[in-house]
Amino acid sequence: MADRKYWLGFDLGGTKMLAQVYDEKWKIIGRERKRTKPGSGADNGLDRVVETTQKAIEEAGITCSELRGIGIGCPGPVDMDKGILLQPPNLGWDTVNVKERLEKTFTCPVAVLNDVDAGTYAEYRQGAAVDARCVLAVFCGTGIGGGCVYQGEILRGAGSSCVEIGHVQVMSNGPRCGCGQRGCLESVASRLAIASQCARAAYHGDAPYLLEKTGTDLANIRSGALASAVKEGDKGVKDVIREAARYIGIAIAGVVNVMSPDVVILGGGMVEAMPDLFLDRVSASATKRAMPAFRDKFKVRLSKLGDEAGVLGAALWAEHVLGVQ
Amino acid sequence: MADRKYWLGFDLGGTKMLAQVYDEKWKIIGRERKRTKPGSGADNGLDRVVETTQKAIEEAGITCSELRGIGIGCPGPVDMDKGILLQPPNLGWDTVNVKERLEKTFTCPVAVLNDVDAGTYAEYRQGAAVDARCVLAVFCGTGIGGGCVYQGEILRGAGSSCVEIGHVQVMSNGPRCGCGQRGCLESVASRLAIASQCARAAYHGDAPYLLEKTGTDLANIRSGALASAVKEGDKGVKDVIREAARYIGIAIAGVVNVMSPDVVILGGGMVEAMPDLFLDRVSASATKRAMPAFRDKFKVRLSKLGDEAGVLGAALWAEHVLGVQ
Repeated sequence: MADRKYWLGFDLGGTKMLAQVYDEKWKIIGRERKRTKPGSGADNGLDRVVETTQKAIEEAGITCSELRGIGIGCPGPVDMDKGILLQPPNLGWDTVNVKERLEKTFTCPVAVLNDVDAGTYAEYRQGAAVDARCVLAVFCGTGIGGGCVYQGEILRGAGSSCVEIGHVQVMSNGPRCGCGQRGCLESVASRLAIASQCARAAYHGDAPYLLEKTGTDLANIRSGALASAVKEGDKGVKDVIREAARYIGIAIAGVVNVMSPDVVILGGGMVEAMPDLFLDRVSASATKRAMPAFRDKFKVRLSKLGDEAGVLGAALWAEHVLGVQ
Repeated sequence: MADRKYWLGFDLGGTKMLAQVYDEKWKIIGRERKRTKPGSGADNGLDRVVETTQKAIEEAGITCSELRGIGIGCPGPVDMDKGILLQPPNLGWDTVNVKERLEKTFTCPVAVLNDVDAGTYAEYRQGAAVDARCVLAVFCGTGIGGGCVYQGEILRGAGSSCVEIGHVQVMSNGPRCGCGQRGCLESVASRLAIASQCARAAYHGDAPYLLEKTGTDLANIRSGALASAVKEGDKGVKDVIREAARYIGIAIAGVVNVMSPDVVILGGGMVEAMPDLFLDRVSASATKRAMPAFRDKFKVRLSKLGDEAGVLGAALWAEHVLGVQ
């Protein structure tokens, strides 16, 4: 048997995919990135995953016989035991056995997990919540995802990953959510929800900077533009974001009252663009609404690993579940 | 060393306390019940716990040297590792080390846990959710408590027990809750919340049976009277209960979306008085609001053990954590 000492992490996203090879000290020694091209089917998609993986291995100057294993984080529900990705909505793929395909190609064990779980696990191992007993992570971007590491293990649902904090109700009879319900956190505090309210504010004249910079088309109102608008004094934008952060805090308080985590991590594109604004407001709102017994027991912190969390977490998780085999 | 083969379960409630001795097949061989007399302090209270335990041991015809261990479920937050009961509001006690006191008196190991956790654990071991991977239990009475057994272990919070589902928000700007927040599940669906709405219905003439039977004093409107009123056709009462059950389902759906349990158990005095009404309505409401991926993965079931769950669960938990020592 070859000297297997490297781990490969893979972050399969809705728009890009990223493979990184890590040495024994978790230093990146090889790396490849491709666009995902969703919508072209699971088989074509997995072909691109294989190519990207191969390129990263080549770039690292190793062969796959030197890999101890691969961890791959996927954007959708995952059957972790079987390594199956279950109809990921962002990719438009059918259910597909990712583990089987990659193990056959690379002749090393493969661990498949949800991408948000991977990011949460990375923060638990090397980020903002190292060794915490119970970590809840909330990632705010186009949607809002959540993950939990409880006593060193990813919290698992009945059939797949869980912690869908984006679909906890925070407003009775609130706006219609993509999931079909009303008033889900995602329907009031995702980037899309924020952008739509800011577009309205711009239209009404409450966000002159944003209006000039992006116009009122939601597709152009990205987190960077929102952050600039806040900085430039667009009151309408700031108010919308503060209100969104308040709702994120309410949803977190609901989970805190049920699970009483030690650390709550905030990450994702929206938070990275305006870290202090989110941290302050979310933290204040969550603390205010959490039960007194749990209130002093948790800390809200910013993600430390940012974009690296997903790919690193996938590799670390592979080590965790495959390392002793 | 004596032949230690019996377990003792203890259910310390706000109004009564109950000790039961179990043989190796979990048959009850001794039993004692006392009123709790809360408000007379932790020391006096623990004296009564000791007396009750002694009586149950005597009634079983054994000595404490034959006990393998004692499990005691307590109405409040508990530090399970240290065996400390933390300022239980229902008893008006200061923080007290229950484990130390009982171990000294009975010279056997003692496990201390929250009473709702004990009930949940009993349902997991011998009730309506035997061997389920993840069980969420919701007990609806004067308040609303929750517990979770995840992969065979009680889900633990940062400092104590958790799963305070009664304090998950289900109504934005809803009624003021005892915890200081607004719109908590307990503020709209506990027996007290239901009774106050039914008293109003009775006053307005929508609940003639209830009005005649109990009048409009909340203290008299117990679950039995509410069940009779529903049976006798008090539309006002039925509507209030259906609405409360709908909110219980909404809170459950929120937890389902975060934890994706396999089984959700409904218990407590209100549910026991009107099991079918609660089961149907809660189940429909929770299913409707849960995310599609989780919707077919959980079942709502009635508690099987009723009043016995707390005391049995305490003994079973003692066996689980002390049995291998």
